[in-house]
Amino acid sequence: MEKLKIGVLLSGGGTNLQAIIDQVAEGLPVEIVKVISSRPDAYGIERAKAAGIPVRALNREVYADREAADALIVEEMQAAGAEYVVMAGYMRMVTPVMLRAFPDRVVNLHPALLPSFKGAHGISDAFAAGVKVTGVTVHFANEEYDKGPIIAQEPVRIAEDDTLESLEAKIHSVEHELYPRVLRLLAERRVVVTEERTVRILPQG
Amino acid sequence: MEKLKIGVLLSGGGTNLQAIIDQVAEGLPVEIVKVISSRPDAYGIERAKAAGIPVRALNREVYADREAADALIVEEMQAAGAEYVVMAGYMRMVTPVMLRAFPDRVVNLHPALLPSFKGAHGISDAFAAGVKVTGVTVHFANEEYDKGPIIAQEPVRIAEDDTLESLEAKIHSVEHELYPRVLRLLAERRVVVTEERTVRILPQG
Repeated sequence: MEKLKIGVLLSGGGTNLQAIIDQVAEGLPVEIVKVISSRPDAYGIERAKAAGIPVRALNREVYADREAADALIVEEMQAAGAEYVVMAGYMRMVTPVMLRAFPDRVVNLHPALLPSFKGAHGISDAFAAGVKVTGVTVHFANEEYDKGPIIAQEPVRIAEDDTLESLEAKIHSVEHELYPRVLRLLAERRVVVTEERTVRILPQG
Repeated sequence: MEKLKIGVLLSGGGTNLQAIIDQVAEGLPVEIVKVISSRPDAYGIERAKAAGIPVRALNREVYADREAADALIVEEMQAAGAEYVVMAGYMRMVTPVMLRAFPDRVVNLHPALLPSFKGAHGISDAFAAGVKVTGVTVHFANEEYDKGPIIAQEPVRIAEDDTLESLEAKIHSVEHELYPRVLRLLAERRVVVTEERTVRILPQG
């Protein structure tokens, strides 16, 4: 199978990037052609370098004009041959500039079961609300944030003895399993966005 | 264990009532002391009669004054000795009259994972939205509808080959398992509403 070429956007530790790198080493048919960090001190940059992935670190000044920042990112991603842009702990909003350049090809991960608990605090909001089931969502980004077509979801139970910290650990563990699984579906060209703006996963093969 | 005395409110077929009746026959420590139907032609009335449960059917006229209707229901439920009021396919809103008479003792079932897909069409709304995981929620009713403390939730995956009909069947099947499970927790006096308006389930015994 031809490898899926992806660019990864991150802002922090890059644990989801690492999960993908690890799965690539195990045979996931994905090539990470570029990593771009919104922060020059993100530890994810080291992970990319250690894996031999071309990496570019941006800084606050670049984001003073958000659309110009996205135009720069689009240019770098396209130059590297990325087919999909994968957000992995990227703490910036993407603008229509990026969404138009990669229509239904910007992938985001949300640490809750959308449409519940949108926004920047999906895990702690769910914990505080007292729900008994939360989870992880992988979806295409669109201009209404956290509202793009859902590719995959995985439920996570909140147990009586869970703390916010233990719930975060559970959620991150599911993220690290789910994100590579979705990338495999994309590599297999099995992910289709319907006219109703929902996602169908085609049968294997 | 002393049996938990419950009154059941319904408006239709009463399949959740039947699931509870069946579990009572299997030893669930619950006594259904009263069934009240908001419609005189609800098939759930026959199920109650067949199980020897006192039943009262109301009609539209009674609900012309919703608070008066709830006052009547409260009176009947209290006279029958109900400790909890269990909504099982009850298509009427409950008013503060009932909530004040049974504070944190009116139990409702919602066919989605709250806070997602509130309202009267939880299953079809989730299906149309293209989520990959939905589920069932049992919660205490409060004055903000579908916003009371969550007692239990169970996830349900939406498969690629699910239709709305097959999803409805899955959801109802989970309802019939979850509702008796929650009644058992209530009978065991293990359900506590915290100051933060979330539910803690106490350890067994």
